[in-house]
Amino acid sequence: MDRPYFHHIFDPVLENPIFVQGLPGLGNVGRIAAYLLIKFCGAKIFSELYSPSCPDYVSVDSQGICRLPRYEFHAAPMEKNDFVIMTGDTQPSFDDVVAHYEVCSEILRFAEQCGCGLIITLGGVPVSENKAQVYVAATSPRLAREFMEKGAVIYSKGRIMGAAGLMLGLAKEQGLDGLCLLGTTTGFEADRGAGFSVFKFLMKALGNEVKEGL
Amino acid sequence: MDRPYFHHIFDPVLENPIFVQGLPGLGNVGRIAAYLLIKFCGAKIFSELYSPSCPDYVSVDSQGICRLPRYEFHAAPMEKNDFVIMTGDTQPSFDDVVAHYEVCSEILRFAEQCGCGLIITLGGVPVSENKAQVYVAATSPRLAREFMEKGAVIYSKGRIMGAAGLMLGLAKEQGLDGLCLLGTTTGFEADRGAGFSVFKFLMKALGNEVKEGL
Amino acid sequence: MDRPYFHHIFDPVLENPIFVQGLPGLGNVGRIAAYLLIKFCGAKIFSELYSPSCPDYVSVDSQGICRLPRYEFHAAPMEKNDFVIMTGDTQPSFDDVVAHYEVCSEILRFAEQCGCGLIITLGGVPVSENKAQVYVAATSPRLAREFMEKGAVIYSKGRIMGAAGLMLGLAKEQGLDGLCLLGTTTGFEADRGAGFSVFKFLMKALGNEVKEGL
Amino acid sequence: MDRPYFHHIFDPVLENPIFVQGLPGLGNVGRIAAYLLIKFCGAKIFSELYSPSCPDYVSVDSQGICRLPRYEFHAAPMEKNDFVIMTGDTQPSFDDVVAHYEVCSEILRFAEQCGCGLIITLGGVPVSENKAQVYVAATSPRLAREFMEKGAVIYSKGRIMGAAGLMLGLAKEQGLDGLCLLGTTTGFEADRGAGFSVFKFLMKALGNEVKEGL
Repeated sequence: MDRPYFHHIFDPVLENPIFVQGLPGLGNVGRIAAYLLIKFCGAKIFSELYSPSCPDYVSVDSQGICRLPRYEFHAAPMEKNDFVIMTGDTQPSFDDVVAHYEVCSEILRFAEQCGCGLIITLGGVPVSENKAQVYVAATSPRLAREFMEKGAVIYSKGRIMGAAGLMLGLAKEQGLDGLCLLGTTTGFEADRGAGFSVFKFLMKALGNEVKEGL
Repeated sequence: MDRPYFHHIFDPVLENPIFVQGLPGLGNVGRIAAYLLIKFCGAKIFSELYSPSCPDYVSVDSQGICRLPRYEFHAAPMEKNDFVIMTGDTQPSFDDVVAHYEVCSEILRFAEQCGCGLIITLGGVPVSENKAQVYVAATSPRLAREFMEKGAVIYSKGRIMGAAGLMLGLAKEQGLDGLCLLGTTTGFEADRGAGFSVFKFLMKALGNEVKEGL
Repeated sequence: MDRPYFHHIFDPVLENPIFVQGLPGLGNVGRIAAYLLIKFCGAKIFSELYSPSCPDYVSVDSQGICRLPRYEFHAAPMEKNDFVIMTGDTQPSFDDVVAHYEVCSEILRFAEQCGCGLIITLGGVPVSENKAQVYVAATSPRLAREFMEKGAVIYSKGRIMGAAGLMLGLAKEQGLDGLCLLGTTTGFEADRGAGFSVFKFLMKALGNEVKEGL
Repeated sequence: MDRPYFHHIFDPVLENPIFVQGLPGLGNVGRIAAYLLIKFCGAKIFSELYSPSCPDYVSVDSQGICRLPRYEFHAAPMEKNDFVIMTGDTQPSFDDVVAHYEVCSEILRFAEQCGCGLIITLGGVPVSENKAQVYVAATSPRLAREFMEKGAVIYSKGRIMGAAGLMLGLAKEQGLDGLCLLGTTTGFEADRGAGFSVFKFLMKALGNEVKEGL
């Protein structure tokens, strides 16, 4: 394996799906939000991405079965919006920036093949006192305004590090619409509350009802 | 040399050989076990692998003769199971993960060319108090169970770092059977006892008799 | 994106333009001087360069709109000398020297396509007590002498680190004329004074009048 | 520039030249010895090698003229043995081992094109008390013995780091004869004495007379 490699499982039937990505990161907000979305939609894994820039170990489960670190793509045919939901075990190494650009480009190509025209990345943003809020940055003023009107705060004059930012920047360069939703979090521990806020905001913004008790 | 390169010495005659790998690592358990197996089988080196991701030095022996760091492949035609036994001077640099994926993929390709259908990697696992045990992780529940029944403990909910893990994960992705045997060790010094435990367990599990006095 | 990539905006009409580069670096002298030149010339951005060796984040502006780090090329058709002025958000990672050579080579190729025969890089040079001065190094004795006669001090027996030096060295190897102008600066903070000195000297040396009040 | 690149200056007429390499390193012993050989032979630079794995700066000389870091090849047609003498400004980064293998392979290819059948690398070896001695390691027992009989001490059970070792290991793999001469040195400062010892030993071993007063 000398380059990213897709292990395809089945071909989902999806109509204009929205691509949603949540990976490990600050407070694990993005990954938690993506898991909640997968659970809410009953999404099924239909493709896996392996990459030589993932770490060189295997994870072993409780039955002693190993597998490589990977990215997973879940298909969710829904009534309102179909989704392709991406999550994964890892982000490419911070030391290998070129690999990060390559993997994110590969993922965007895949998203386009799936028919996705809108890319949504989920992540966390550090705050000193925790006031639950969702920030938005986007590839166009129209999208930023649209999600601001739905309750998000404009994330202005900052940077979005890692995959959540890079995917957005590459999407813009390729003429795709994209936005990033960032949940406020105070720490580096897994922040389930922030993950839920981001998930709930996303659902509401796209016109889905989520009950608090999920 | 800009990519891994095999220096082939002779073509061994082997029937459905099992591929066994033991490299330097924690307590040098894997490497010691592989050496014991080479000695036990009277295995002969038939191929060497050089790689630009190996360190940039030469080792010099007692006669002043130098050679590059390398991986060695030993052929052991046996009565019960034929073996291809791999050991080596080094693991690819921890800093260069992509190189590690490449070299391990190259080695798996070579193992398949040799007709190997089962990949066994050997290594060490750190424990605080030394109770000699051999752990097993595998590419399938059937294999994990089979070696558990032969006396190994399931290695569950952990990670296997480096080549011992990566080879296994890549083998699984390529549809090969594989398992990893990990000997318990307390320290980072060469742990000959743990190496012997792993070697002995492997021999017993495959139906070979090893006398304690080896 | 697995290699540098130009996003072309329009084709400027330029006659034998001079290529001027000022990137972030010591005291930000080069970047400030390049911005002043862009402002002075009313230069228009005509091409952008994205590279997988740029950092993996997006910058977000005050409206919440994101973009990838990039290099920008501005066209300035002038009465005396036409310019292609390059600036950017970043320099390739210090850790990835090969990427730095690649990106600088790519930029030189672009400069040649634009018809540039002279490459001028701008930067800062650290001094302990700040006496405003502009140093010059060049690809040929003739050029070094020419700019010395115009008031610069020969930068001798030193090194020029990063893009300002590398572009010059690569230009020389490709048979292009080049020079580097270095403004003295005491610190690592943005040194607007040093940037202005370099800009003013460049304008004077090329026969343009700059009023102090700019 | 995305790979090593030769800038050829002239075609020397050499008969079965010996390739001698001395690069910066421990006590600068190798580089000093190579310079002394160049001076002794009145050797002329006939080719330069640039590489994207060299550092990203330019050196500037006393006239303000810049140039990239590089390797130089000097031709010395002599009465007894013709030489190709290689020296340079740098070694590839310790962090980029793959680049080191690539550059050394490229240099060996060049040496073979020049008709060199014997590769001699020069370097330093650290000792606690300075007793001037020259150590030898070689690609074959015959060569090691030959130079031992001429007064060198066998360098046994050690490692030779960096280009001096790697060139030797790669030469061996390609079926070329090679040896490394290491001068004892106590420190990391430029050790002119050790450099001279290595140079003098090399000349004597090859049957050339060197007067002490050089």
